[in-house]
Amino acid sequence: MARVVVDVMLKPEILDPQGQAVANALPRLGVNDVSSVRIGRRIEIEFAGEPDLERAREIADKLLANPVIEDFTIRLDGAPAEVA
Amino acid sequence: MARVVVDVMLKPEILDPQGQAVANALPRLGVNDVSSVRIGRRIEIEFAGEPDLERAREIADKLLANPVIEDFTIRLDGAPAEVA
Amino acid sequence: MARVVVDVMLKPEILDPQGQAVANALPRLGVNDVSSVRIGRRIEIEFAGEPDLERAREIADKLLANPVIEDFTIRLDGAPAEVA
Amino acid sequence: MARVVVDVMLKPEILDPQGQAVANALPRLGVNDVSSVRIGRRIEIEFAGEPDLERAREIADKLLANPVIEDFTIRLDGAPAEVA
Repeated sequence: MARVVVDVMLKPEILDPQGQAVANALPRLGVNDVSSVRIGRRIEIEFAGEPDLERAREIADKLLANPVIEDFTIRLDGAPAEVA
Repeated sequence: MARVVVDVMLKPEILDPQGQAVANALPRLGVNDVSSVRIGRRIEIEFAGEPDLERAREIADKLLANPVIEDFTIRLDGAPAEVA
Repeated sequence: MARVVVDVMLKPEILDPQGQAVANALPRLGVNDVSSVRIGRRIEIEFAGEPDLERAREIADKLLANPVIEDFTIRLDGAPAEVA
Repeated sequence: MARVVVDVMLKPEILDPQGQAVANALPRLGVNDVSSVRIGRRIEIEFAGEPDLERAREIADKLLANPVIEDFTIRLDGAPAEVA
């Protein structure tokens, strides 16, 4: 069994208010050197047999990410990310 | 500027209905060899200066994850994950 | 066409760090009288014909909420919530 | 203590792949009369004193929603929604 990881983040030009909320809360924890926080999704897909990156890309494109507002990367768990 | 990545996933014993919905939708795409889909969060924290993993751990523990139901890992972007 | 609304919130005893982050960010906006922020999901289900609350409950139970950590309510859009 | 509810949904013209995944999973549950599923966020804000809808609107605008891609409504808990 092997795992494919899909990371989905809002495109850099799209405001992320949830990340902004975390960033704004940090000074109260005494943290003043964080310049940005962005919150996205991480999806772990387990394949019963051989992991299939092309399949994973198709799944991401149709069911996991909205390509108009989000970017995603796909990789075998443990491997460096390959940009979609 | 350097980036710390925090991955937050539901603990393995906690049911993930959103991941289940994706898994159940796959046969309609002709995908029949996926055994599990789990959906978590990926948080990217940019530090203005030196990235601080201990700080990131404290932020994760207080503002990003609920340790009762979630596990998180922290790493410098590009580095292998270190389990929290 | 009619719409059923499902509101899913973490159970009150489960810590909500994302809500906590928003609450902690409020003093920087000059807001000091908020005692709690909780972030859940709102799902809108459109039925092609008659809306079916029992169906919606089954969908919520299997694909939208984890009953171990979350509570949900179901209602016709516009109607008061009925606790699940 | 009084509660303000903020509902945040993707704008209707923005694709919602997570809702799509749920919709695509329904035929396997024997549900064939759902035409659309949309997944948004529901945020409950408790005020220590008088609930303040104007404050809640400011919080939503800065920390809860991205007005470019999302719409939000604000209401006192129990009251009908007022569109933002």
